[in-house]
Parts: sequence; structure tokens; C-alpha cells
Amino acid sequence: MDDQVAAAPRSRRAGGREAKRAARSGRAVASVPYITRKIPYFEVLDEEGLATIERNADIILEEIGIEFRDDPEALEIWKAAGAEVTGERVRMPRGMCRQLIQANAPREFIQHARNPERNVVIGGKNTVFVPAYGSPFIRNLDDGRRYATIEDFRNFVKLAYLAPSLHHSGGTICEPVDLPVNKRHFDMVYSHVKYSDKPFMGSVTAPERAEDTIEIVKRLFGDDFTDAATGKPKTALISLINANSPMTFDATMLGAAKVYARANQACIVTPFILSGAMSPVTVAGTAAQTLAESMAGMAFIQLVNPGAPVVLGSFASSISMQSGAPTFGTPEPALVLYVMAALARRLGVPFRSGGGLCGSKIADAQAAFEAANTLLPTSLAGVNFVLHTAGWLEGGLSMGYEKFIMDVDQAGMMHTLLAGVDMSENGQAMDAIREVGPGKHFLGCAHTQANFETAFYRSPIADNNSFEQWDIEGRQDLAQRANTRWKKLLAEYEAPPLDPAIDESICDYINRRKASFPDSNI
Amino acid sequence: MDDQVAAAPRSRRAGGREAKRAARSGRAVASVPYITRKIPYFEVLDEEGLATIERNADIILEEIGIEFRDDPEALEIWKAAGAEVTGERVRMPRGMCRQLIQANAPREFIQHARNPERNVVIGGKNTVFVPAYGSPFIRNLDDGRRYATIEDFRNFVKLAYLAPSLHHSGGTICEPVDLPVNKRHFDMVYSHVKYSDKPFMGSVTAPERAEDTIEIVKRLFGDDFTDAATGKPKTALISLINANSPMTFDATMLGAAKVYARANQACIVTPFILSGAMSPVTVAGTAAQTLAESMAGMAFIQLVNPGAPVVLGSFASSISMQSGAPTFGTPEPALVLYVMAALARRLGVPFRSGGGLCGSKIADAQAAFEAANTLLPTSLAGVNFVLHTAGWLEGGLSMGYEKFIMDVDQAGMMHTLLAGVDMSENGQAMDAIREVGPGKHFLGCAHTQANFETAFYRSPIADNNSFEQWDIEGRQDLAQRANTRWKKLLAEYEAPPLDPAIDESICDYINRRKASFPDSNI
Repeated sequence: MDDQVAAAPRSRRAGGREAKRAARSGRAVASVPYITRKIPYFEVLDEEGLATIERNADIILEEIGIEFRDDPEALEIWKAAGAEVTGERVRMPRGMCRQLIQANAPREFIQHARNPERNVVIGGKNTVFVPAYGSPFIRNLDDGRRYATIEDFRNFVKLAYLAPSLHHSGGTICEPVDLPVNKRHFDMVYSHVKYSDKPFMGSVTAPERAEDTIEIVKRLFGDDFTDAATGKPKTALISLINANSPMTFDATMLGAAKVYARANQACIVTPFILSGAMSPVTVAGTAAQTLAESMAGMAFIQLVNPGAPVVLGSFASSISMQSGAPTFGTPEPALVLYVMAALARRLGVPFRSGGGLCGSKIADAQAAFEAANTLLPTSLAGVNFVLHTAGWLEGGLSMGYEKFIMDVDQAGMMHTLLAGVDMSENGQAMDAIREVGPGKHFLGCAHTQANFETAFYRSPIADNNSFEQWDIEGRQDLAQRANTRWKKLLAEYEAPPLDPAIDESICDYINRRKASFPDSNI
Repeated sequence: MDDQVAAAPRSRRAGGREAKRAARSGRAVASVPYITRKIPYFEVLDEEGLATIERNADIILEEIGIEFRDDPEALEIWKAAGAEVTGERVRMPRGMCRQLIQANAPREFIQHARNPERNVVIGGKNTVFVPAYGSPFIRNLDDGRRYATIEDFRNFVKLAYLAPSLHHSGGTICEPVDLPVNKRHFDMVYSHVKYSDKPFMGSVTAPERAEDTIEIVKRLFGDDFTDAATGKPKTALISLINANSPMTFDATMLGAAKVYARANQACIVTPFILSGAMSPVTVAGTAAQTLAESMAGMAFIQLVNPGAPVVLGSFASSISMQSGAPTFGTPEPALVLYVMAALARRLGVPFRSGGGLCGSKIADAQAAFEAANTLLPTSLAGVNFVLHTAGWLEGGLSMGYEKFIMDVDQAGMMHTLLAGVDMSENGQAMDAIREVGPGKHFLGCAHTQANFETAFYRSPIADNNSFEQWDIEGRQDLAQRANTRWKKLLAEYEAPPLDPAIDESICDYINRRKASFPDSNI
């Protein structure tokens, strides 16, 4: 395993801050760091409906309570704050969680990247597109479906770096199952550090792995890690803390959450819900339970470190009655998403949900319908942190190379959609209409000539040629064109510059840590 | 050609109204006749933006004007109404068109079907899903792409009849190019009459073909054709009157519009716009021009017959700079759609746009992304009459069998989406959450058992099985499953009952008319 890290440069420290600045200004991929929407949010429920769901969430927290399992410290923290603790069950007095969150948690926050031009603002009117997360398998047209490796992981980090529509490098883009379970976080975090300069996510599979992630980031940021104004660590990591729905948090997640919260790093508290299994089969029931669970987690984090950045997360899908398998891209999860986004705004915290979700095993029309039926609601609802934007296949079991390329294209379209309608004089185009007049065409007019290059979103993979041209060129489908594109992108990839001294320091840390305990797959 | 019609039953008249009622109550396909939305509209522009576009449309009508070509009667009508007519150019005083429409045109209207349970209300909060229209080619996995025939036409009428999510039989579902141009309207209209009991569209390719369509409908409805309350003909047809953008109407379309308007049949006035060719390359410019053109057409129809039902139509796409070909499913047409829907509501007329549009040649992921990126805006914007809901491929050049099945599935999902969130006690599901509690699952609880059957939209073609199951079953993609489904549906199809006497009367009319002039393909 060490050979991955040993490949890092070993050159001498080159001059600190100066060298860093020079490195940052090197060849960069063109993109905006994140989207700030100019169109309204879409909401499906009125004030009364939303207030009812909030009331139901409060009832869940007060009457039923949330279990905090195998973590006596968590129970002590709740007890000290005034919650009713019975065994591992914590019941929060009405309004307690909301009050803790609204009094302490930031409405929006900056997640810092090693390249400051890539810092993202999470919350408010902003949308950050992030690759998919967590698949043990990959799929592409060449290999079919197979277990993911660290090489796949690096490939996806590179592809995400090259994608102008993705603002983030993600986290466990796929599981590098060729590496031991207890050490693969080093190689994953290092890949994000090395092959991208976009912000990334932290390891959550054990508290000590969260600590490792923070140690690496400290070395990556150096003196910049501490915010000069506040004296607190900058938020340079965001991590995924899933609730074990219904109404349970486990020790692993609580442990990681505590590590990150104490270091002022951001946590996304997400109930992972397949409606019908982990929540009721209804939209309103699922929304109330999601809100209750996420509020409990976010309030807990505010008790651990008041002011630590938190994100309300919702991952809700339905299940197939026939197979019990999760289904995606259906209308019910979209309704949950619209409701949860509105609830997050009312609570005053950033919101994470959605992406290019699908249940299809391959990057076919099913995958595309399902992904579009998730990504459009994601964009219209106003999701701030869009985990699983690109690559997701098979309910998250596979990370698809071609699907990734397709989803990146779709995310690009969302940039244009969220920019809304240009109502400037040029946008109104009355001069063009006057110039052309009835029965003529606009192709050659001055306004068209001046605006054509930027007028329409251009997909790099859609085929808009004539039937005859497409026929001659080999009748390729979208997956085949996406296959060509990811290979071309990887072949042309150039890593963003990284100060060799920083690189060396990080590699030293990783190598020392790796050598300090034996490999294990438990 | 006559053999298609000669196949109609020749039995004696069986007893008029009684028989008709009995026939209507026969085995019917389960569906709601149309959707009435329970969620808000999504809009992208504020009052100021929409008012600016309305002002620009007024400027276009007053300063530039609209050409009404090769139709002296149309020019006389405009002159008599007070418009400024120069040559074939008609300039309407500020506000004239809006006033004519708002004073006369219905905000919503019923289109009658031969089965009254399938009547649709067009306008208001209602959405009517209609098959695609006008393709010369068909495509399926068995034949690839080939010219369409009347057998294809019948197949699609049958599939639309069997689709619970489609509310309408459409019009020229595909062009039966095996029939002579000047007679194929008989066979198309007869197919709608015979193989479906849903409402359908009229022929517009020549005024006399519009007359033929009305004659057939008169025989289909018999005494029911006249509304007893008003003494006027019921609206039993809706027809597509395209503007020849920019700012032009031609004699064919004006001729058909006059025939239908005088018979109180509905007209959809649609500027057909590929932005960059027939309109400026901007959203706001395209919207202003579309509004001006459609208002001119709708106002003209109100001058021909005040109160005749009209629909504001918008078909706007962008073009590829590389190939000049139309592109679909991109963000700019979606923005036009949201803007036009809001403008139609402000004007107070029903709105037609959208559907399952795509530029892809085949039913692949490109087709699905593009279709979903059109159908979701269609649904959220509040389109009332969704032409091209199902089957559209290749910018409308091909009607796809598998694509049709996929689009029908998507339209089904829109039913669920537009129904919104159930906020009843059962929808809130608090009893279920109380019953299950932390760490358990909801699969077996009473609430899940009571609601599971109807809780989630179920796709008949999506594969939600495990990877292993899907693998064993032959690794089919969505197109292959859709192929199986349309064949099964056609094999099981049963025609809705039609009074044999009515059938005979219609066939007599068609046969007599067909014999009265020679075949022609001009």
C-alpha cells in the first residue's frame, strides 16, 4: 500500500508561503468556485404544511426521543444540557434542539480549499456540486462492473478536478478495496490533496481516522490553518455523519462527529432513509422524522462545540415493494427533497441532499431519467451541498465512469438554469427583432453573431448532428461518447501544483502512521 | 388505402343513445381524465421581468407587425378591426390583441371525447398529456429507423389509449407515408375515432381537410355535437396552428384556423422557434417574440369567431452552433417555458408547450436526460396541453416505440408529483413513528401494511432488482424492457366499443370523399 504514498516527490522545502502562492497561480482548470442562484426556490408546501411537519418533529424529539448508542460521553453531554436521558434514549424538551442550532450554528460558512480560489460557501443561495460517495464497485464500458481500487479513486479525483461544473473533490468517491480497511483513509485523503486543489471531505469510519484527516489538513494548510481573525481553525473539511435511522446514532458516527466538531470542521448530519424501511411510507412522515433526527445530531454538535458548522442532510428514497431494493428518481423522494430544503431554510442551516441518484445498474435511459428527476429538484429546491452529483449508479453500489461524465454535463446545465433569465438590453434583444423582421432569419444578424458563442449551454457529449452524420460516425449512444471523453480527460490530466515541502511533510506523516500499526480489514 | 376503412364493421344501427351509453360503460382502461395540480407553479421571473416582456411583445405588434400571407380575407378582417395593414403586414395598436383575447377567449374549456368520461378540461390548474406529433419516421429496436406507416399510426393510437398517464390520443402521431398526402387525414382521424375513446386533434394541412375532420366528428357525436345550453357546437377537436416564425402566418395555417374557429373548435397558436434561427438567441427575446406572434394569432381567431377556444402555444428550442441542428433538454428552452407559462396565466388563456423532447436519435441516456429536462419544467411550469409527451426522438423526426413507453412512464410519475404532499393524519404517519420507535424498521408496521400498495409510484419498466437478479435475467437496459412492454400491450389491446351505426356512417363519409378526387402526394 505504501507505494502509493512513496510516489510523492521528496524534494527539499522550496520556500514556504512564496512557493505556495506561485504554485497556486499555476495552470488551473476554468470554473466558478460555486453557484449562487438567481432564480427563486421551488416549494411544494405552504406555511401550514411546513409548520405541521416542524411540530411533528418536535413531538418525535420530546415524546419518542433519539438513541445515542455506545457513547456514554454523548449521554452525559445531553444530560448536562437538560435533556431527559433514559438508558441510551435521549428525549429533548420541546424547542431545545432548534434553539441550540439557531443560537449557535452558522447559517452559511466557507469551506477552505488549498487553492483559495476554490473555497466554497456552503449555505444561503449557494450550490456546491460534489461527486458521488461510497461505492464499493466501479463500472465502465471496458471492464463492466468490478471492485474499485485506489487507481479508480485517483481517476475520479482527477476527473472531478477537471470538471468545471463540480466544485468539490468529494470524499470516499469509491472504496479502494485493494487497500486495507484500517489504512485506506490515508490514501484517499492523500489523493484529494495531491490530485486536486478543490475542497474535500474527511474520513468518518473511526474517530482516529478523523484525527488523521485533520492532521493531514493541518500540514496542507500550514500556518493558514488557523483563522487570524478568530484564532479558531479554518473549516477545511466537511464530513458525512449519517444517522442510523430510525432515530438512532451509533458510536462510530458520534465519535467522528465529535472529533470534527471540536476542530471546527463541518459535519453533515444525514438520516439515511429508505422510506418504508427506515421511515413511514409517506412524504410528510419521512420529512418529520428526517428533521427530528438531523436536528438532534446538529444540536448535539452545538453542545460539543458551539458554533461548529453543521449541515442538515436528507437522503430519502423509496423502496420497491417487489424486491425491497431502493428506487430513485421517483416523485416521492423529490417531494421529500422540496419539503426538507424549505425546512432547512426555516431552521437557518445549510442543506445537503440530492444529486444524480439512480437505481439503474448501467448508464442507460433508466439511469438518465432517474438522475435528471433527482438533479432538477435538487437545483430548484435550493440544495447547498449536492453530494452524489456525479457517478452514482445502482443505488450507490457502483461508481460509473460514463455516468460520471454524463452527470458532470448535467451539472453544467444547472449552472445555466440557476443563472436565470438575462433581462439586460442585450438579453431583451429588441434590436435583433427590429433588424430581422417578419419572414427572415436571425442566424446572420449582428446580435446573434455577438452572442452565439455564449448563448446556449453546450454539451461536450450530446450528439446534435443530423441522423445521417450520426449514422456515418458509428451510431454511438451517449455512454459510448462518455467513454471516449473520460479516457481523453484522464490522458490530458495535469495535476495542480503542490508545494513539494508540504507534499513531503504529508507523506512523512502518512508513512509514519501507516508503519505504526498492522494492516487490518476489520 | 381504402382497405383500412373498409375493415370497419358494417352492422346495422343498434339503438342510438342507449347503445352508445352501453358501449361507453364497457371495459375501459383505468385512468384519470386529466391532472389537476395541487402544487404551486414554478416561475423564474418577477413581476418586473414579466411586464418588460409583455411591453416588448406590444412593441413588436405595434412597430414591426405580423405578416398574414396569401390570405386577403385575413387582411380584411384585421383592417375592419382597426389594425394598420400595409401590404401583408399587419400592425396592431398597442393593447389591441390583448384586449381581443381577454374580452372573448375562454380561460379554460372542455374538449369533448366520444367517451364523456375522457373529456378533458384545458386550462386553469389542469394538465393534459398528449402523444408526440408529426414524425415522418418511426424507430424501434426491431426495425431501427424507417418511414412510418398507417399501421404504426394505429399502433401508437392503441398504445396511447392503453396508457393511463396519457389523457389524449393526439393528432398526427406519425406521418403515414404509405398513404397519399391528400387522403391520409381520413385514415388518421378514423384511427383516433376507432381505436381510442380519448379526445384527439384535427387535420390542419389544408382547410378542406379541416372540414373533413369536422364532418367526421359530427357523425361521431351525432345529436351530442351541439351543446343544448348554448346552441353552439361542442369543442370536440383541438388543432395545431403554427406561426411561421419570425412574425409570419401562412395561408394554410390561417385557412385551417378559420375553419376550426368558425366551428367553435379549439386552436393552439404556436410559434415554432429554434432560437438563433427564428428568434434571437436570448430567452427574453424569444419569449417576447413568441408572445407577440401567439397573441396575434389568438386575436385573429377572436375576430373570426369571438369566444372560440384558443391556446397560447410555445415551442422554443435552441440550435447547435456546430451543426445548426435543434438541441433539446438544455436549460435555455426550460427558462423560456417557465416564462411563457407565467405569461399565459397573466393573459388568461390555456398554455401549450413542452413534453418529452429530445435530440437524440435513439432511446439512450441522452434521450432520457433531454426528455426529463423538458418534462419536469413542463409539469412545474403548469403547461395545460402537453403535446409531444410521448415518443419524440431526433427533434421530432422519429417516433420511437420504446421512447413512447418510457415517456408514458415518466408522465405517470408527473401525476404523483403534481398531486403534492398528503398532509392528512395518515400522510403525517405519526402513529407509525410512535409504533416503531428507534432502531426498529417500518416494513411490518400497521401503517406500512395499510399504505404500501399505493405509497410509491411504480414504474412498469424500471429495473429495481438486485445486481445479481438483473445479471441473471439478461442484463437488459431500459430500451429492451420497453420493447417487451409495447409488444405485450399491443398483443393485449382491445378496442373501446364504438356504436356500429356511427362507425358505418363515418366510414361511408370517408369512402365517398376518398372516391371523389384522385390520390395525390402533393
